Amino acid sequence: MSTVTPPANPEADPRVKAIFDDIRQIRGNDFINNVWRYLAFDPALLEETWRDVRDVMAKPSAIDFKTKEMIYAAVSIANSCDYCVHSHTAAAKARGMSDAEHAELLRIVSTAARTNHLLNAIKPPIDEVFDLSE
Amino acid sequence: MSTVTPPANPEADPRVKAIFDDIRQIRGNDFINNVWRYLAFDPALLEETWRDVRDVMAKPSAIDFKTKEMIYAAVSIANSCDYCVHSHTAAAKARGMSDAEHAELLRIVSTAARTNHLLNAIKPPIDEVFDLSE
Amino acid sequence: MSTVTPPANPEADPRVKAIFDDIRQIRGNDFINNVWRYLAFDPALLEETWRDVRDVMAKPSAIDFKTKEMIYAAVSIANSCDYCVHSHTAAAKARGMSDAEHAELLRIVSTAARTNHLLNAIKPPIDEVFDLSE
Amino acid sequence: MSTVTPPANPEADPRVKAIFDDIRQIRGNDFINNVWRYLAFDPALLEETWRDVRDVMAKPSAIDFKTKEMIYAAVSIANSCDYCVHSHTAAAKARGMSDAEHAELLRIVSTAARTNHLLNAIKPPIDEVFDLSE
Amino acid sequence: MSTVTPPANPEADPRVKAIFDDIRQIRGNDFINNVWRYLAFDPALLEETWRDVRDVMAKPSAIDFKTKEMIYAAVSIANSCDYCVHSHTAAAKARGMSDAEHAELLRIVSTAARTNHLLNAIKPPIDEVFDLSE
Amino acid sequence: MSTVTPPANPEADPRVKAIFDDIRQIRGNDFINNVWRYLAFDPALLEETWRDVRDVMAKPSAIDFKTKEMIYAAVSIANSCDYCVHSHTAAAKARGMSDAEHAELLRIVSTAARTNHLLNAIKPPIDEVFDLSE
Repeated sequence: MSTVTPPANPEADPRVKAIFDDIRQIRGNDFINNVWRYLAFDPALLEETWRDVRDVMAKPSAIDFKTKEMIYAAVSIANSCDYCVHSHTAAAKARGMSDAEHAELLRIVSTAARTNHLLNAIKPPIDEVFDLSE
Repeated sequence: MSTVTPPANPEADPRVKAIFDDIRQIRGNDFINNVWRYLAFDPALLEETWRDVRDVMAKPSAIDFKTKEMIYAAVSIANSCDYCVHSHTAAAKARGMSDAEHAELLRIVSTAARTNHLLNAIKPPIDEVFDLSE
Repeated sequence: MSTVTPPANPEADPRVKAIFDDIRQIRGNDFINNVWRYLAFDPALLEETWRDVRDVMAKPSAIDFKTKEMIYAAVSIANSCDYCVHSHTAAAKARGMSDAEHAELLRIVSTAARTNHLLNAIKPPIDEVFDLSE
Repeated sequence: MSTVTPPANPEADPRVKAIFDDIRQIRGNDFINNVWRYLAFDPALLEETWRDVRDVMAKPSAIDFKTKEMIYAAVSIANSCDYCVHSHTAAAKARGMSDAEHAELLRIVSTAARTNHLLNAIKPPIDEVFDLSE
Repeated sequence: MSTVTPPANPEADPRVKAIFDDIRQIRGNDFINNVWRYLAFDPALLEETWRDVRDVMAKPSAIDFKTKEMIYAAVSIANSCDYCVHSHTAAAKARGMSDAEHAELLRIVSTAARTNHLLNAIKPPIDEVFDLSE
Repeated sequence: MSTVTPPANPEADPRVKAIFDDIRQIRGNDFINNVWRYLAFDPALLEETWRDVRDVMAKPSAIDFKTKEMIYAAVSIANSCDYCVHSHTAAAKARGMSDAEHAELLRIVSTAARTNHLLNAIKPPIDEVFDLSE
């Protein structure tokens, strides 16, 4: 059950077709997953979202691809986004995340959640040594 | 302003002293930051929390130390934990995170938050290809 | 799968019947959606919840009905409440939200989420000019 | 206390100067608030963030400026972003939000939070009538 | 720094005075804490909020007063509400929460946060035996 | 749909069998719910998680068992963890939570969410009297 109606024939719209073609080319395969099919209900929103995600996640940068997907999955877990947890866990696996690294990721995310709540409860003063603003 | 009273002389309690000694030894310096000083209001809670964090973050494992701190910081951002964002950003820097990697981390965290909210709003069906349970 | 048992014949309880009647009258139709049917497991909780929602959402006030439902949907997205996202997106549509406005709402919600996470990470000092407390 | 060092003389960098000039021109005044000064630690991140926010918030679109800022503030409240709550409440006021509309906004946001948590607890089945995907 | 201006002389407004008097009488002392002073910027919002909180928290009910405040504090921690964590931890202490119970509360909240994130990541199917909807 | 593959025959691994036996013995019945079956994909993560949860939730301590499960459920609601809301509501019922106490729990959780959002929006200064750090 979704809150938007995906177009029946999305690529009839040339703006949508251009984005789908870019997705296919960057990924090297023909599969278009649902997030893009549903976002096609508004071609401008589809364009902006794909460009954001592509520029951050699909271009070489300071952090390698596998680690980027693991960070993305970690944030998606904390934000309770079902679709995102599934798609970015799968993407991290596709980028080479092993089962041991997956278990380790879950260990870090859940331990962080534990201390996040503990410190949101206790509210110790933040040590001056952590000030990185110079 | 905190919700607990840190003990004036925490190391008078041998359980607290043992944990503080372990922190100093593992980190190779004498600084004990406030989270541990405040958690000392309940020595058992201090012990459990330190052991959890130490076992996950201070021991060699499938993911390198710098990346672990970056993932920890990412989750702390999503959970709005001020103390944790400051301490784990500082820890990631101490483990070698460059300014470029820090900017990249923020880019991933904020882009993930954007799509997390977008997909929590649209609720597209989760593609079968993301099912990793088989 | 729910955590409560909705009563088989809720309107046998006069307090539930009174609330259901009020819902029908205010909405001008006979449909009672599941949130009210399930809350009927505790008539007092049903009464309080309906009165809260009715007073805020179904009475003329400083903000028009369509905008109120859009704000309600935005908060529900940020809080990851599936039922609420579905019901208040539908309500906003029923109040006149166009597809273009829906796309725009998602654009604002997701951009806000992006900068929310970015600023929770960077923690710049809050400018004095934003102090509205005099 | 921030996690990044804002450059002492940000406009020495021509990319930063171009963004600051754009901010000044669009707003019609000379004030640059801290979020942009701190984001200048990474000019690319500053550019992306400003362009995102400007395109969504500072251009005429399907939703009027005051309502856009009110929705942005609502999401920032739900995401516990201090800086964003302050800056977007101030922006909504600058766009014409009255005290009565502000109180009404808070009424909607807090009532939504109440039912969000209630329905996340009860989990009633989502009524088929809310399915907008067809 | 607040987003609203508290009235300089709140009790000049008879609606505000009536609420402040009710607060004083129920609590048996003269102290009015800041939440009520700031909410007085909109007397109707003050009335609704106080009545909600009073009816749930200050009247005898199925759960004793100390436990109610501990549950309220737990939710406030999870929602990252600074003011609420401070005020409801103090209220729980005033209702008799011991240091040992406080430490235990933090242990439960932080362990729950740990498994919450873990299960939001793993997404095991929910066992049929947990269905309480009959 | 899950993000991990539960082992087909988990108790073939002696570490998993030891944990499952401990679960059965402490609960006094043979049922192993899905969270443990899925966590068995990584025996070390299973061990750590079970030990954490068991030590906090299944041992006599300062807070009684029913109240502990109610607090756990409250946090799970605020963190939007479906599995946890279902399992800990069921556990609280098994520990003796009545329907009236369940309704009361929901009343507290949802009222707390309401004021949490309200105060995250208004940001009144935290009263000095709430400082428990001295």
